[in-house]
Amino acid sequence: MASVIALDAMGSDRAPKPEIEGAIQAARHFDVRVLLVGPEDIVRAELQRHPAAALLPIEVVHASEVITMEDKAVQAVRAKRDSSMRVGVRLVRDGRATGFVTAGNTGAAMATAKMVLGAIPGVDRPALAAVFPTALGTAASLLDVGANVDCKPHNLEQFAVMGEIYFRSMFGTKRPRVGLLSIGEEESKGNELTRESFALLKQLPINFVGNVEGRDLYNGEVDVIVADGFVGNVALKISEGVAHLVRNTLKESLKATITRQVGALLSRSAFSDFKKRLDHTEYGGAPLLGIKGVCFITHGSSNANAIKNAIRVAAEFAEKPIEGEIEKALAAIKPKEVANTI
Amino acid sequence: MASVIALDAMGSDRAPKPEIEGAIQAARHFDVRVLLVGPEDIVRAELQRHPAAALLPIEVVHASEVITMEDKAVQAVRAKRDSSMRVGVRLVRDGRATGFVTAGNTGAAMATAKMVLGAIPGVDRPALAAVFPTALGTAASLLDVGANVDCKPHNLEQFAVMGEIYFRSMFGTKRPRVGLLSIGEEESKGNELTRESFALLKQLPINFVGNVEGRDLYNGEVDVIVADGFVGNVALKISEGVAHLVRNTLKESLKATITRQVGALLSRSAFSDFKKRLDHTEYGGAPLLGIKGVCFITHGSSNANAIKNAIRVAAEFAEKPIEGEIEKALAAIKPKEVANTI
Repeated sequence: MASVIALDAMGSDRAPKPEIEGAIQAARHFDVRVLLVGPEDIVRAELQRHPAAALLPIEVVHASEVITMEDKAVQAVRAKRDSSMRVGVRLVRDGRATGFVTAGNTGAAMATAKMVLGAIPGVDRPALAAVFPTALGTAASLLDVGANVDCKPHNLEQFAVMGEIYFRSMFGTKRPRVGLLSIGEEESKGNELTRESFALLKQLPINFVGNVEGRDLYNGEVDVIVADGFVGNVALKISEGVAHLVRNTLKESLKATITRQVGALLSRSAFSDFKKRLDHTEYGGAPLLGIKGVCFITHGSSNANAIKNAIRVAAEFAEKPIEGEIEKALAAIKPKEVANTI
Repeated sequence: MASVIALDAMGSDRAPKPEIEGAIQAARHFDVRVLLVGPEDIVRAELQRHPAAALLPIEVVHASEVITMEDKAVQAVRAKRDSSMRVGVRLVRDGRATGFVTAGNTGAAMATAKMVLGAIPGVDRPALAAVFPTALGTAASLLDVGANVDCKPHNLEQFAVMGEIYFRSMFGTKRPRVGLLSIGEEESKGNELTRESFALLKQLPINFVGNVEGRDLYNGEVDVIVADGFVGNVALKISEGVAHLVRNTLKESLKATITRQVGALLSRSAFSDFKKRLDHTEYGGAPLLGIKGVCFITHGSSNANAIKNAIRVAAEFAEKPIEGEIEKALAAIKPKEVANTI
């Protein structure tokens, strides 16, 4: 089947505008068909503002309900059985779409995907993998950022396996360097969880480079960083906070005098360059690894470009044998664990 | 006693240069005497490059050994009994100094202070409190960043009490807003540790504002942020990593064309403004809260300005009744806990 991506048309903060524009761009530039999922009247009204869309491989699939950012994840999933999220994920389950993309409530998206699609055999906890740019201009991935709190060492072991396969498949890196997020490089550094996880990770048939510290996340010397979902989520949100702070402080300073304003004008292209290099919208969102099916979650503040790229990346993901590889790799480490404990 | 600060002359990456320059600036501008602790020949040789220092209240105290950043903390503290760190902390214990400042190995400094000075009665784990600037130009403090891993809820409770007293005393904020670092605002969000800690923190006689997320660290809406030492340390180092990434990427972009270079030149003052606003060297390092005595740890990359400010802040700290307040506040929450568990 050619790539067919179900897109939650109602996910982002400014939905459905970025979704519809992103879908149009994706359908125009990539070999992909997009199913826009949401209340038909709202979606069609927005779609009609783009006459060119009629000529593109874009369809509307009706869903009467919408899960908001304010909704409690589990309750919303239970109560809103005809949400754009639920209907979109169902399209994947029923084989009508090869992947699903949403910019909506992360907790609800994860819960829906787990419930409707289920986990790959052997996976105890599916994990959300953030992708971001490094100082070297390469990509790196941090997982779990999806709030799998209070993880056990074998959860982190599975995150490492899934993250490695994902990175290798998507970025073409032969032996991705996998690190464990901790607070010191030596094996003995860290907390109970990281120390026990270290022992498991170093036995895996992956390129495990040991502990990495927070400051190494962005230096490009590690490709996949493994963390408990609490730590990973804190790490991701702090990064957003710092980037925001630095950008805003600089912007303010540049407006303070006329000379500076002229200076800022002349160096404007540098700022847009800079923005592009650090732009997370180029990376297409975070895959939910370990579920049966392709599911990408992008930031609530996503613009059309972020949506377009998420559709592209979800389509690529669907063409790789990632799911099968995860199942095989986890089956291969299972017996060893059992052997060790007997 | 007037303020007398013992300064580890051998702590920073470029020691003893920044230490000696910082000591001279502090002795010149503030009402403080500085005891420079380190190998006498090295310290005096550097000191002689500044003839003006002879007229200032600066003394040299000999210590034959130096703990390096590469040293393992516990081993170094045990093996190097005449280190500049150990001798400096001893000056505080013996009443010859009102406070100690080091830019050296954080783990070794914490271990030395705990061993030589001991904890304030009632304190289970002393905590290191980082101080940093927010988007509003105010200061905020995060603790613990000193690697107290695998904390229990009552550790975080004590961190909250100590951090609140410290912030109130040093920054003159009447009711500092204290938050718990977590991954969602509701009480139910977070991991086992934060959920149990939340229940304790909301019973404290402090201005507890609930859970805060990583992105709130720098927005100026919370003054004291409480976290397990693993999470706090990761948070601090990630912040450094992101700030570094943003700065470097922008710098590179600004050098790419002539027009941009001219622009950068004109807006140069904005960049130094910006640097100053986000400059952690203005904040004078991190206090180790909960030990009997005043001990500040600054970044290994500290320059003279950072050292100068650390001396200033350590002297101020020594004049406040922080230690007594911590003892009293912890004694007051003890009985309640007992009553609850019986």
